[in-house]
Amino acid sequence: METRNPSASLTVMTEIVLPNDTNNLNNLFGGQLLSWMDRCAAIAAHRHCHRIVVTASVNNVSFRHPIPQGSIVTLEGKVSRAFSSSMEIFVDVFLEDQTGQGERLKANEAIYTFVAVDQLGNPIAVPSIEPETALEKERYEGALRRRQLALILGGKLDPTRATELRSLFFPEEAPSASTADTDTKA
Amino acid sequence: METRNPSASLTVMTEIVLPNDTNNLNNLFGGQLLSWMDRCAAIAAHRHCHRIVVTASVNNVSFRHPIPQGSIVTLEGKVSRAFSSSMEIFVDVFLEDQTGQGERLKANEAIYTFVAVDQLGNPIAVPSIEPETALEKERYEGALRRRQLALILGGKLDPTRATELRSLFFPEEAPSASTADTDTKA
Amino acid sequence: METRNPSASLTVMTEIVLPNDTNNLNNLFGGQLLSWMDRCAAIAAHRHCHRIVVTASVNNVSFRHPIPQGSIVTLEGKVSRAFSSSMEIFVDVFLEDQTGQGERLKANEAIYTFVAVDQLGNPIAVPSIEPETALEKERYEGALRRRQLALILGGKLDPTRATELRSLFFPEEAPSASTADTDTKA
Amino acid sequence: METRNPSASLTVMTEIVLPNDTNNLNNLFGGQLLSWMDRCAAIAAHRHCHRIVVTASVNNVSFRHPIPQGSIVTLEGKVSRAFSSSMEIFVDVFLEDQTGQGERLKANEAIYTFVAVDQLGNPIAVPSIEPETALEKERYEGALRRRQLALILGGKLDPTRATELRSLFFPEEAPSASTADTDTKA
Amino acid sequence: METRNPSASLTVMTEIVLPNDTNNLNNLFGGQLLSWMDRCAAIAAHRHCHRIVVTASVNNVSFRHPIPQGSIVTLEGKVSRAFSSSMEIFVDVFLEDQTGQGERLKANEAIYTFVAVDQLGNPIAVPSIEPETALEKERYEGALRRRQLALILGGKLDPTRATELRSLFFPEEAPSASTADTDTKA
Amino acid sequence: METRNPSASLTVMTEIVLPNDTNNLNNLFGGQLLSWMDRCAAIAAHRHCHRIVVTASVNNVSFRHPIPQGSIVTLEGKVSRAFSSSMEIFVDVFLEDQTGQGERLKANEAIYTFVAVDQLGNPIAVPSIEPETALEKERYEGALRRRQLALILGGKLDPTRATELRSLFFPEEAPSASTADTDTKA
Repeated sequence: METRNPSASLTVMTEIVLPNDTNNLNNLFGGQLLSWMDRCAAIAAHRHCHRIVVTASVNNVSFRHPIPQGSIVTLEGKVSRAFSSSMEIFVDVFLEDQTGQGERLKANEAIYTFVAVDQLGNPIAVPSIEPETALEKERYEGALRRRQLALILGGKLDPTRATELRSLFFPEEAPSASTADTDTKA
Repeated sequence: METRNPSASLTVMTEIVLPNDTNNLNNLFGGQLLSWMDRCAAIAAHRHCHRIVVTASVNNVSFRHPIPQGSIVTLEGKVSRAFSSSMEIFVDVFLEDQTGQGERLKANEAIYTFVAVDQLGNPIAVPSIEPETALEKERYEGALRRRQLALILGGKLDPTRATELRSLFFPEEAPSASTADTDTKA
Repeated sequence: METRNPSASLTVMTEIVLPNDTNNLNNLFGGQLLSWMDRCAAIAAHRHCHRIVVTASVNNVSFRHPIPQGSIVTLEGKVSRAFSSSMEIFVDVFLEDQTGQGERLKANEAIYTFVAVDQLGNPIAVPSIEPETALEKERYEGALRRRQLALILGGKLDPTRATELRSLFFPEEAPSASTADTDTKA
Repeated sequence: METRNPSASLTVMTEIVLPNDTNNLNNLFGGQLLSWMDRCAAIAAHRHCHRIVVTASVNNVSFRHPIPQGSIVTLEGKVSRAFSSSMEIFVDVFLEDQTGQGERLKANEAIYTFVAVDQLGNPIAVPSIEPETALEKERYEGALRRRQLALILGGKLDPTRATELRSLFFPEEAPSASTADTDTKA
Repeated sequence: METRNPSASLTVMTEIVLPNDTNNLNNLFGGQLLSWMDRCAAIAAHRHCHRIVVTASVNNVSFRHPIPQGSIVTLEGKVSRAFSSSMEIFVDVFLEDQTGQGERLKANEAIYTFVAVDQLGNPIAVPSIEPETALEKERYEGALRRRQLALILGGKLDPTRATELRSLFFPEEAPSASTADTDTKA
Repeated sequence: METRNPSASLTVMTEIVLPNDTNNLNNLFGGQLLSWMDRCAAIAAHRHCHRIVVTASVNNVSFRHPIPQGSIVTLEGKVSRAFSSSMEIFVDVFLEDQTGQGERLKANEAIYTFVAVDQLGNPIAVPSIEPETALEKERYEGALRRRQLALILGGKLDPTRATELRSLFFPEEAPSASTADTDTKA
């Protein structure tokens, strides 16, 4: 199966924050943003594997900046790593400076995991991925640690075997990529 | 400030999966469920503190069972732990057996963190919480580990100081509750 | 066919009033509430009979209190009486006190009638019901009068034969349950 | 205050039944239709009095014919009677024959009551109405009976004083219009 | 195939401008109005030919008056001319005077072209049309010029052969109806 | 006032066609696409001038290819020419090849005109534009002809003075740019 680059899956979405998308502070609802990010991540995953994809998990979404009503929001999704049938996707969310004077502001970041499935919903293989830019490489490396963490939290991996993660706590230990080759059911 | 029980925040939502909520396999979109869970968690957080609440982060949502179109879905949200201005909320998602013969199926589980804010969006104190049932106690205990993890992933805590988390990898070490008393900006 | 209790059909829905749900006074649109109540009643009817159910009629919805934007609204639906293939459902609507100081306010009440149908849309039998609490018994008793009224208004019953209803006007007459056993096409 | 004709309030709405509007039999949800009828009735009431209007009650909606997905539905609302600050509105719902061979089918009928209010939500007077056509006159006459019925069901009128309604059960008694001149709070 | 009158296709839609339909000036979004007009035009086209119809093009929509939130908007669609398988539809948009003192204001006008298709999406013949009123006749006449213009802009007609259009620039030339009989693929 | 390049206004939107967006052939509704294109054009116009922008007119939208349910649709909007307070925006719509084997298909193209306004809705000046690529230059040139045409159709320009347009019919005449410098009220 072929190898692809993260850039092939880049998905850009632009949204305007409408009244119904906002909470009592007139800022974007977290739930609405979660829904947009999921859609963006799903299209990025689809562009990587050209298969039906379903959300497997959401990891570590943090909301840094409130996004006021009327804002123009840009979401950029890109596959960061592919495992046998699952893909990790980063979604970066930017808030547009409306005056045109300054830079756009990074408002949120989310990591989603999607699984490619056939028409019956059974997992199927996806192309592997080869990162190119520095950021793509950094996210590719981190994917393994995040994966071990998800497996531990889901009760599917013994923490003492999570070598990548252990190295966070004990930097002197050398991590290995032993869990990178297999998928547990996502 | 008063202490409350988790049951005071219990929030029940019932939804039917409509055509527009589904993907190409005619199952509920992950993004739609994320949005419902966020709304459920927000109301639970509000019922705990009676303040404006905003989503701070989403942790560890995993999608176990596909939810077909036409399903009746019940979401149950409850605050599991309160920190100084933030609250961790568990949302359990159940899929109703439509024949009436069997039990409802646990389809998903999500953990959200919300922060109580004043009209200007600044964090304000929330009541503490005292778990009662066995499950409430278990989730209350785990909240500390999840909090350390979020702080590490967000770059706000040195992993070697995350005593609760370290104990996952080195069970012989005794965890302490040293990070439980303070909020970093959520 | 089995007999069930009203509590088996209890359906709780929690909603937040968003900007698009409101009229020019920034209160919840009657039409939006009617739609939510119909969905709540439909799920309650489904939980009683585990069949496809369709709205047959709406009776006597009165709007007591305006519900402002941002309110948390709880709907509670429960089957009050089952006839051969139709079910009467009460939906009580509560407005949450947002300060946490007081009680929730009963804002509305509606009575819906649903019919259980097969895949071709033909009416089919539903389980009978046995009320338990005082309120369930009161609503169970009243269902017969409301049913006669609906039949009269629909031109399907001669008013002089509506013994339950006549007793409202002539309390000295003893009502009988003669119309309780049969369904006209709902 | 001026007198107006029912035709001045005629409101026509045309809708297409989309996938999200349908139940498991692919027919229009009752709740969706209730919401459309409320909007149609609200505009008709507004056209009669040119004031803010709010839904006071819904009376006697019966669903005669299922309305399949893809149908073109026409709603026609018209004020049938005006009391001091409230208005009764009939909404007739027609299902369009898609082949163009036949007539449109009357699928539903609903009666709504709206109240005109000022900016603070207090009831204010509306113009009186003078029916012209035979159907308008018939509905105008019936409005009084329906009003007594609503007041009785709402506990605001002693049934033995509801002379219009009593005449349904005892045709030999002559009805009078004694409750027609005053509004209770709707 | 029969001939029909424009009035047979008249389609009236009434809408209220809700918060989510508005831009930052609290006026109706152009895109929302375009969507309503398309739906209105589609129903009018369907009423003319009783076939599946699809949008072929939109011509010359101009937005004359802003439409504020809360407005009651009436759309009136009518087929102005039928070609072999396509139909031109005018949609007039009126803004209701909310005080009841004055006239309704013409806020917009749009011209849509729809094509009748069979279940496979292939164009099929539609009835011809015979205008009756002065306005219907004027729009019927203009349809030919607009059609030539669309063909030229789409690169399907040599401008020097567009006799109807040329007459706009050179009034002394006599227009002919030579392109009226055939449809190019819409 | 500064001069900007078309590329500064490039706006990319990605959408999935959901069930509610489709007609009876399970293809995207024209009206839904019109609404998406308007939003895309509005953001592009905003990115050019950083002002509130409102839709002035829609010109020459033609629908080339049906877009089936489930499709991934990409819209790309870019300002093609700026006049004193109005901007012409091209929106190109692409349909994604879901197998990943081939190219994306150009499905539609639309031309919108937006006007920049202040908080009171009065037109205000926008930056001029300088096209760079061959396509940008071609569209920039054509904008003048389209503008004359819109003015003629709106009754604001005498056809015999529309030199740019006349040249379409009489290629030997030399066009001039005389109407390019002024805005009529858009």
